[in-house]
Amino acid sequence: MPVNLKPPAAERLLPVKGVALGIAQAGIRKANRRDLLLIRLDERAAVAGVFTQNRFCAAPVLVCREHLRSGAIRALVVNTGIANAGTGEAGLAASRASCDAVARQLGCDPAQVLPFSTGVIMEPLPVERVVAGLPACAADLREDNWAAAAEAIMTTDTLPKAASRKVSLGGTAVTVTGIAKGAGMIRPNMATMLGFVATDAAVAQAILQRLVREAADASFNCVTVDGDTSTNDSFVLIASGKAGNAPVADAGSAEYAALKKAVTAVAAELAQAIVRDGEGATKFIAIEVSGGRDAAECKAVGYAIAHSPLVKTAFFASDPNLGRILAAIGNAGIHDLDVARVKLRLDEVLVSENGGRAGSYREEDGARVMAQAEIAVRVDLARGEARATVWTCDFSYDYVKINADYRS
Amino acid sequence: MPVNLKPPAAERLLPVKGVALGIAQAGIRKANRRDLLLIRLDERAAVAGVFTQNRFCAAPVLVCREHLRSGAIRALVVNTGIANAGTGEAGLAASRASCDAVARQLGCDPAQVLPFSTGVIMEPLPVERVVAGLPACAADLREDNWAAAAEAIMTTDTLPKAASRKVSLGGTAVTVTGIAKGAGMIRPNMATMLGFVATDAAVAQAILQRLVREAADASFNCVTVDGDTSTNDSFVLIASGKAGNAPVADAGSAEYAALKKAVTAVAAELAQAIVRDGEGATKFIAIEVSGGRDAAECKAVGYAIAHSPLVKTAFFASDPNLGRILAAIGNAGIHDLDVARVKLRLDEVLVSENGGRAGSYREEDGARVMAQAEIAVRVDLARGEARATVWTCDFSYDYVKINADYRS
Repeated sequence: MPVNLKPPAAERLLPVKGVALGIAQAGIRKANRRDLLLIRLDERAAVAGVFTQNRFCAAPVLVCREHLRSGAIRALVVNTGIANAGTGEAGLAASRASCDAVARQLGCDPAQVLPFSTGVIMEPLPVERVVAGLPACAADLREDNWAAAAEAIMTTDTLPKAASRKVSLGGTAVTVTGIAKGAGMIRPNMATMLGFVATDAAVAQAILQRLVREAADASFNCVTVDGDTSTNDSFVLIASGKAGNAPVADAGSAEYAALKKAVTAVAAELAQAIVRDGEGATKFIAIEVSGGRDAAECKAVGYAIAHSPLVKTAFFASDPNLGRILAAIGNAGIHDLDVARVKLRLDEVLVSENGGRAGSYREEDGARVMAQAEIAVRVDLARGEARATVWTCDFSYDYVKINADYRS
Repeated sequence: MPVNLKPPAAERLLPVKGVALGIAQAGIRKANRRDLLLIRLDERAAVAGVFTQNRFCAAPVLVCREHLRSGAIRALVVNTGIANAGTGEAGLAASRASCDAVARQLGCDPAQVLPFSTGVIMEPLPVERVVAGLPACAADLREDNWAAAAEAIMTTDTLPKAASRKVSLGGTAVTVTGIAKGAGMIRPNMATMLGFVATDAAVAQAILQRLVREAADASFNCVTVDGDTSTNDSFVLIASGKAGNAPVADAGSAEYAALKKAVTAVAAELAQAIVRDGEGATKFIAIEVSGGRDAAECKAVGYAIAHSPLVKTAFFASDPNLGRILAAIGNAGIHDLDVARVKLRLDEVLVSENGGRAGSYREEDGARVMAQAEIAVRVDLARGEARATVWTCDFSYDYVKINADYRS
């Protein structure tokens, strides 16, 4: 059951000029489901991406990195069902064959196509099914097709994820719309398991690359479901340049700041949607760590809490067994942490200070917050001014069920 | 259900001369269970220990470290039910009060007593119940009481853990016997959640400290259940010196090597017993990593696999979804790992090479091994000569159930 998450209303997903989306049922792994997405970009669109740091990264990630260097991207092709990761040379060939087929379909160069895959690892991609599905995708290409595209990239997701914002850049209204998928193997490290955000703003390529990193760091790189960084994580930002604004070319400008705010808002909404729909999730947990020497140690504490199976099962049980959070903080790798100065709050309830349970703490207050569907865990390290937030979900029977059953 | 683990036969647990154990029902957290253990050492016993690296370490761990510096330990006192961790100054006072009571009971100095606790974190230790239980413990002190002691330190363990060895040191027969408890919050870092091993061998103090570290590194520091390093991990080695051997005082001697082998065998049997009885465990997995540049990177790969919830749930399901193991290897933090050289085997079945699925691999071979109760995951990194083994268990519905219900 996703936590406070609804399917995006199609009419609230704003089309992005110069970006058309087409969907088909290609039968990649299962019949009768939309599992192939083609995104066509008009000429002069700028595209930037960030990808997984997993060393066993997928073949399409390798091809994406290569094709992004050549620039002038005209299309993206996304299949679900098979991740095309752990597939060696044959996987690379399959990914390149997908690009070739898209290039033939749309009349561009294969190096102008970015391929993406998600699904089971170490099984071969049936590239002939991708190729056979492309004409149907091409026939379906429309700018107002984001809702269907969000559905087509789902795997164990129970709901599609999409978000839109409008923002004014120097008097010109521009749109930012994006989709993402998640569910399991979610601990993005530089990016996430397939996020695509497009804007019709004109943005210089170098600036777009900076923007995608900054947006990823404040959104996808703040979430975790199970601590497993996927082999296929990819977050791509498209700027079609059709809005008519003066191109954003200065990272210090007001226009950059405004666009960054809108892109980050869309990306954060998508990243939080992934957590709300994390495999088996029943609770949405925001872990806010403050008082660190730097953001890295705040994130380390946030992830230590977010990855502890004991903390996650306590949230599932609504059990204020909050000493488990202290144990997780103690395991975050901060060797000179003075635990006597650490403060732990659950929402507004002070749980721990002076190395132990707070004198004012009452079990019923902890139990009340733990029973909520949305909970803030607030940790003050009291050793600096840095802060960071990590979003995660709880750990339920259904996580085990989903992942014990996934291939069958 | 523990994996291929039986309760230790009391008659096979060899008494250690100079080490007496007494048990009582003290009602620390629950009534009608043996939850207090007193171990009395004869004079001149040498004691060495290693303890958790968790920064939120328990009050008894702090007191143990302090008392071990003063030397001449005469007693250990262990309670279950309450961990006395995350309890601040009050917890330290409670731990010292336990030592005071033991000292009065046995007629020694409080600094000659080592206190240990295990159970719920951030709840106060009812020290008056410890004190009230000590006379019953003292009345129960016997050298052949190891089996009852192994029971008295259990928390969510389903079976007691104990092991014995006999070894000859320079013609003198000496005994090594130990007990441990585990179950959850098990990812020892320097030591484990309460392991006690005693020998009647005579061993110099400095040598004993070296021996406890080496034995821990080859046993407790190779296991993980859920990746959560406990606040209370403690592994203590006692050498009573009653066997009549010439004291072991040289780490290069044949006697040191023989004793180390016996102590490590007992510690490894206990450590593996903890994994076999890990919370919710249905499978025992040995992850053998070879071909690393150093043991540290081999262990990092082993733990990356052992901590992946996706890998652990696949083992629970007996599902050879083995790409998840490749993804875990890719996340182990070896930035220059050449994945095309990595080989993955399940027992003797070659699963992956050249960055993808092995040509010889057949799904039914993988499925056959995955259905076993004991499985070896063999990873060859092909970049050096180092190797390391990590022992772990799978991740089942029952892990969630046990940890969602633990306090209730």
